[in-house]
Amino acid sequence: MMQKQVDENFLYLTRAGIDTHQEPVVYMREDCHVCHSEGFNAQGRVRICVEERSIIATLNIVTGDFLSHQKAALSDSAWKLLGAKEGDKARFKHAPPVESMSHVRGKLYGKPFTLEAAREIITDISQERYSDIQLSAFVTSCAANAMSLEETIAVTQAMVECGQKFAWGDGVQVLDKHCVGGLPGNRTTPIVVAIVAANGLLMPKTSSRAITSPAGTADTMETLTNVILSFEQMQKVVRDQGACLAWGGSVSLSPTDDIIIRVERALDLDSEGQLVASVISKKIAAGSTHVLIDIPVGPTAKVRSVELAERLGNLLKDTAAALGLHVQTIISDGTQPVGRGVGPALEARDILAILQNKPKAPTDLRQRALTLAATLLEMGKKCGHREGLALATRTLESGQAWQKFVAICDAQGGLREPPLAQHRYDIVAQRAGVVAMFNNRVISRLASLAGAPNAPAAGLDLHVRLGDKVEKGQPLMTLHAEAAGELEYALDFYRAHPEVLRVEEEVV
Amino acid sequence: MMQKQVDENFLYLTRAGIDTHQEPVVYMREDCHVCHSEGFNAQGRVRICVEERSIIATLNIVTGDFLSHQKAALSDSAWKLLGAKEGDKARFKHAPPVESMSHVRGKLYGKPFTLEAAREIITDISQERYSDIQLSAFVTSCAANAMSLEETIAVTQAMVECGQKFAWGDGVQVLDKHCVGGLPGNRTTPIVVAIVAANGLLMPKTSSRAITSPAGTADTMETLTNVILSFEQMQKVVRDQGACLAWGGSVSLSPTDDIIIRVERALDLDSEGQLVASVISKKIAAGSTHVLIDIPVGPTAKVRSVELAERLGNLLKDTAAALGLHVQTIISDGTQPVGRGVGPALEARDILAILQNKPKAPTDLRQRALTLAATLLEMGKKCGHREGLALATRTLESGQAWQKFVAICDAQGGLREPPLAQHRYDIVAQRAGVVAMFNNRVISRLASLAGAPNAPAAGLDLHVRLGDKVEKGQPLMTLHAEAAGELEYALDFYRAHPEVLRVEEEVV
Repeated sequence: MMQKQVDENFLYLTRAGIDTHQEPVVYMREDCHVCHSEGFNAQGRVRICVEERSIIATLNIVTGDFLSHQKAALSDSAWKLLGAKEGDKARFKHAPPVESMSHVRGKLYGKPFTLEAAREIITDISQERYSDIQLSAFVTSCAANAMSLEETIAVTQAMVECGQKFAWGDGVQVLDKHCVGGLPGNRTTPIVVAIVAANGLLMPKTSSRAITSPAGTADTMETLTNVILSFEQMQKVVRDQGACLAWGGSVSLSPTDDIIIRVERALDLDSEGQLVASVISKKIAAGSTHVLIDIPVGPTAKVRSVELAERLGNLLKDTAAALGLHVQTIISDGTQPVGRGVGPALEARDILAILQNKPKAPTDLRQRALTLAATLLEMGKKCGHREGLALATRTLESGQAWQKFVAICDAQGGLREPPLAQHRYDIVAQRAGVVAMFNNRVISRLASLAGAPNAPAAGLDLHVRLGDKVEKGQPLMTLHAEAAGELEYALDFYRAHPEVLRVEEEVV
Repeated sequence: MMQKQVDENFLYLTRAGIDTHQEPVVYMREDCHVCHSEGFNAQGRVRICVEERSIIATLNIVTGDFLSHQKAALSDSAWKLLGAKEGDKARFKHAPPVESMSHVRGKLYGKPFTLEAAREIITDISQERYSDIQLSAFVTSCAANAMSLEETIAVTQAMVECGQKFAWGDGVQVLDKHCVGGLPGNRTTPIVVAIVAANGLLMPKTSSRAITSPAGTADTMETLTNVILSFEQMQKVVRDQGACLAWGGSVSLSPTDDIIIRVERALDLDSEGQLVASVISKKIAAGSTHVLIDIPVGPTAKVRSVELAERLGNLLKDTAAALGLHVQTIISDGTQPVGRGVGPALEARDILAILQNKPKAPTDLRQRALTLAATLLEMGKKCGHREGLALATRTLESGQAWQKFVAICDAQGGLREPPLAQHRYDIVAQRAGVVAMFNNRVISRLASLAGAPNAPAAGLDLHVRLGDKVEKGQPLMTLHAEAAGELEYALDFYRAHPEVLRVEEEVV
């Protein structure tokens, strides 16, 4: 009788067709024999086993009629994580407690993370054994009792260890750059990579897509070429061109990072230690040896004062150094958006204009890219100290950077023309005066509402900069959208949030 | 054009038929016009408006085919919270940030909660504006920077303010009792209420159902009478009988409490301040004036040392006093289960045996109930100091308590016979010796697996107590189940966890 019972204790798996983002969810009928015999409750944590594979998922109880008594349905994330096939026979039991949560509780009560504790926590997170509630407690514990340098190093190392790692050869110098986010339009990467690679340095760049912002570098590059490269394709492009401009999502560098970032964003909680672990772990996993990090500072940027930027810079450098990575930082102006376009295709157009040395190319974006490329050329010993800017400018103006960019795009699948939006609307100045303030966050939101990045041509074009004098009725920016509805929606938002930029009476 | 756009921006509501427990969830197609125009992402927080009503829900994106483009589906909790009807026209926008989370972030960085901050947080939680991730951060922040007495008072007061409150009349003395959980079978409440009410004191008792344990007082009472009373019915029963034994879930006392407890349980995080706020807020909301709190202490009970019990007792008393409630505490033995039965009907049978003065009634449960009733009689000034035990014993032995119990059950809808389980199995001693240890947690789990409390007759009967001598083959306990499968399932668990009780060689 017992054997029989055990053999009957399964359900067939099916796809729920529900995207619960990262958290794996299983849907089971309240009155199915497994729920009944196991005593499962809604929101309970359940271990699902198919043959030798198993995952832990959060249970949602089906009270409606859409699921058979003989089936359990999995969310998209659970389906993928388990590697399930339609009709797989699965067994279910209460998930065991996640042991590493004891370290999180310890941290809450003031006990610092050891390397061993960090490894256990990060491994469990990467295996998606933490529920959202548990992830939040981990993130919160790191903020409540701020991580020391030692703890930050331990967490960073643990994050590196549990992902894929690129190796570009012993003793090879591998350059990279990173920006501590927050500035709309600040799309320097494609220009910097082209200049640096044109000088024979290795820069295998992987970038992210936007999550809440109107564009990530991968979104922008995707309007120009293919960015979805396998590990092997990426290696070939880098071998041939010395660089790539690929989406990092197809390679599994520091997989815990995306999971943690999502929870931090939901809590609006920026823990410095977590930010450092996130950035440094990804760079080490990417096989980088020399990294330049741009920290824009401004009242509506991510970092709001030079003091905070310096402290963050030191923590970045010290953590990196402990793990054998050389990091330099640049503190830059974060008071207003960069370039003209905000949104994938509009930013791509700015990049092309700069690389092609068009007279109307936005000078601020050009200057920022040159400064960063200059520092990387110096870090890579392609020129002496303070000679980088001249070399970078020469590389750009001579067309070598443009040639390298075209070659990289060709290697990735060919250069293409970024799309143009059909629907546009000029937002004009309601008064004459001087442009006195930009709110970066509201500008990003406005471009997102117009459809960016899902609609690649959507976003906005800024026609003015801080300090510009404007006449009443003069266009301040143009909204771009692929659908009339989206344009109207962004406009509604603009009307409710006129603080996107402020025109003040000129102080004489 | 704009007006048109706004008018088209709705979906019809339907029930998803999914129980996501407390967190409200909305299911929308990725490619529906609202997701598209609003730029919603999976796990985003969305405000759903129907006419003047609105709720905030977490978005799950439907990637399958089961939902129409014109519809959005709501989880059971979202449906209930919004008061939705099939086909309601709903509008959707990004949920605004929850402002009170700034106090949670403040607490994380060491800023204590003010009463104002506590009010804003608790109001938002009670309106279900916090996601699970945010709730976890709140609970974690209370544990990381333990709440002071002042903060505990503030949170307790805020919890009282945002629920329903019972008023039994000015200057009326209202008695209550509470047990800081953890002991299987410790079902003293029905006996205590009968004795206290038989002496003319007011004791309008509301109890909870089990969440993870094999029985709550409401589950046990439900095998004997109806416990689902409206506020008006409850008032009538109390007016006529001086007491009731009702389920507290139908009245909304301290509604935030259940939400917070669920997250604490998921984190296995017992914050003392939260425990105190939970207990005291419910008692004040119930209109109690004098409360006796039982704190069992034992290695497998909730409180593990007398020192911790005393500290907890003081925090309970001081918080209650600040809010005008008189609390006394009793520290009791928590080393083993109480009575014989564990599970709703088996516990009900023990209660009946005691109230009916049956010779075989379990003496430990009887003694605990008498001790608690005695203290309440003294608190209620029905007798002098140290005269309570004699009065309680007289009330029980004379049959007055039994008469009062029958009268209360009659007023609630009539006394009934608790059910008997069809399937039983004796677990016998594998060796001769002395019963040396009980694991309360494993015993609770065993009774739950046998089906309690969903199967009211399920659970287990203990035949031995600590220190009892047993022969090899002598029954130690009997498992009760309503289905053969559940019996086998509990047995499987027992075989894997023989530490439920330990028989050792007798030390002479």
